[in-house]
Parts: sequence; structure tokens; C-alpha cells
Amino acid sequence: MTDDQLKALIRTVPDFPAKGIQFRDITTLLADGEGLAACIDRLTDLARPLNVQAIAGIEARGFIFGTALAMHLGTGFIPMRKAGKLPVPCLEQSYALEYGEAVLELDPTIVAADQHVLVVDDLLATGGTALAAAKLLRKAGARVEHALFAVDLPELGGAAALASAGVKTHALLAFDGH
Amino acid sequence: MTDDQLKALIRTVPDFPAKGIQFRDITTLLADGEGLAACIDRLTDLARPLNVQAIAGIEARGFIFGTALAMHLGTGFIPMRKAGKLPVPCLEQSYALEYGEAVLELDPTIVAADQHVLVVDDLLATGGTALAAAKLLRKAGARVEHALFAVDLPELGGAAALASAGVKTHALLAFDGH
Repeated sequence: MTDDQLKALIRTVPDFPAKGIQFRDITTLLADGEGLAACIDRLTDLARPLNVQAIAGIEARGFIFGTALAMHLGTGFIPMRKAGKLPVPCLEQSYALEYGEAVLELDPTIVAADQHVLVVDDLLATGGTALAAAKLLRKAGARVEHALFAVDLPELGGAAALASAGVKTHALLAFDGH
Repeated sequence: MTDDQLKALIRTVPDFPAKGIQFRDITTLLADGEGLAACIDRLTDLARPLNVQAIAGIEARGFIFGTALAMHLGTGFIPMRKAGKLPVPCLEQSYALEYGEAVLELDPTIVAADQHVLVVDDLLATGGTALAAAKLLRKAGARVEHALFAVDLPELGGAAALASAGVKTHALLAFDGH
């Protein structure tokens, strides 16, 4: 399946969540069995050369691709949870949203010292969430050098934001515009 | 990997979220590469004979197993979202929580008429969330006859609640007690 075929499976919703934003919605890609398999196979091809030891997926859509990738690579999966979900003491990392802020939580006991971890999410926009995930994993002792996304919106500058923190980004598909 | 080996990878947190509840936490299983692979392989073995045409995973932990299962079975994945996440008009189904209520949302355009859909979540307790997912999928025109879980807590009666709505439950592991 070509990039253009995969991109055609992603729905664009204009003016969501605010006027002028083109929301790229992967729901339609996920529901297509061939598209989903092609997407995960190609994400695996991008991830394999990175030789990571675990996949960290960001709640909730990062969970969708993260476990399938972990399975293909033979690694474990580290869920980066939203606040208040885990029943054990956690490390926290807050990050800015368009309005207000949010918090990611991680159980540090499931991260091994110097474990090489790949951050995975569905979409890279400004990079704020992925950067918070990388910081949080590093607090827990992990080594974070790479982050992988199904979709990148390059004009929003996420790759540069992550690069300035020493995290190289990889993405399967890129869309122009916001 | 035996049932007992898989169960040993699941962490039990006493008195969470309330006194007397033994919280079964799959985080520790997910982080173990061999355990994760074994768990997904065995869930796939349970799902394959059901001959479903799509996997519906419930946000957020149902996303973890759902996509990997969809990939193994060659089907698409239908995300059952929490309220307010989707950028398109949705069908809704509310359900009771211990305190208050919650709402699941589904984009009905990604469900085909009479499509045979398997509901997937990490854990079956009282069955309220899975039942809401089944109702919502049926509103969208799907056929829902089965639900699959990594963990069942049989004493909480989820299997009976779902059976009364015509949904047969399947689970990889069962734990006694709440």
C-alpha cells in the first residue's frame, strides 16, 4: 500500500477542534483491515533499525499502535497513562495544552535502568505530549533517543521541539497544513 | 507460558480504588515482552474460532490488546471512544459507574451493516462497560455476539450480565475474589 493510499484512508475534518484546523482522524484508517496492517508493518520497518528494548505508548491513541509494534519487535510495552489511572505510586510530568495543562504518569518500576525506549503516538503536532513522555521516561531511568508517529504535521514544528531535547522523530506519513 | 506464569505477571494492588478491592493491574504483564506476546497469541487463539469481521476495543486499555488482535486476525479495529474525543457526529451510550456515569461514543460510519464485531477489553468485572459497547455497536448496525477479555473476575457477575444481552464472554485468565 502506497503512502497516498494510506493517506486517503485518513479522514480530514475541517475546522476541528477550532476554526482553521484540519483535524487528521485515523479512525477511518484503523477500521480498514488492510490499511491497519500496512500501517503497522511499515511502522515496524521504521522502528526495527532503532534497536529499542521497549515501546512506550501515550494514552490513548498511542496504545493503538504501540502494542502491535511491541509484538512485532518482541519487546514489552510501557503505557504512559493520563493522571489518576494507575494504582501505584507514579512519576509525573505535566505539559501545556492549548487551554490549560495535562499530566502523564508512569510507574517507574516497569522501566529498567538505561533501557532504550521508543516513544510512540499516532500524530506529531507541536510535540508537547511526546516531549513530556520522553522527559518522564528519562526520570524513570530510561534512555530515550527516538519517537515514532503514524502522522506528522511538519508545519507545527514538533520534530524541532523534540530534536532540541535530543529526541529524533520518525513518521510514516506527513500532511501539509495544520 | 502457562496460565499461572501469566497470572504471576499481573500485579495485585490491595484496597484500590476502595478498601476490600484487589486491583488486578496488567501494567506489569504489558512491560514483559514474553508475557505480552504470550497473552496476545493466546487471546488470538480464543478469538479466531469466533470468525469475527472486526475488533472493537474500549478506550483506553481495550486499545492495548485490540489492535494487536485485529492485526493477527486480519481485521479492522473500531475504537470505542470516551465522550468528546471524536471530531465527527457520533452515536452515544451511557453506562453506570460506581459513582456517576460515563459515556462511550462511536462513529457509526466505520461500522458495516450486520458486521460481526468482537468487543475487547482488558478486564471483565461487572460487565457494564462492555455491555454499553455492545449496545452502541448494535445501534450502529453491527452484530455483537462475543466479548473477549484478558482477565475475568467471575465473582462480579459480568459474564451473566452480558449473557442476558446475548453476548457470550471469553477470557484468558480468571481471578477469584474482587
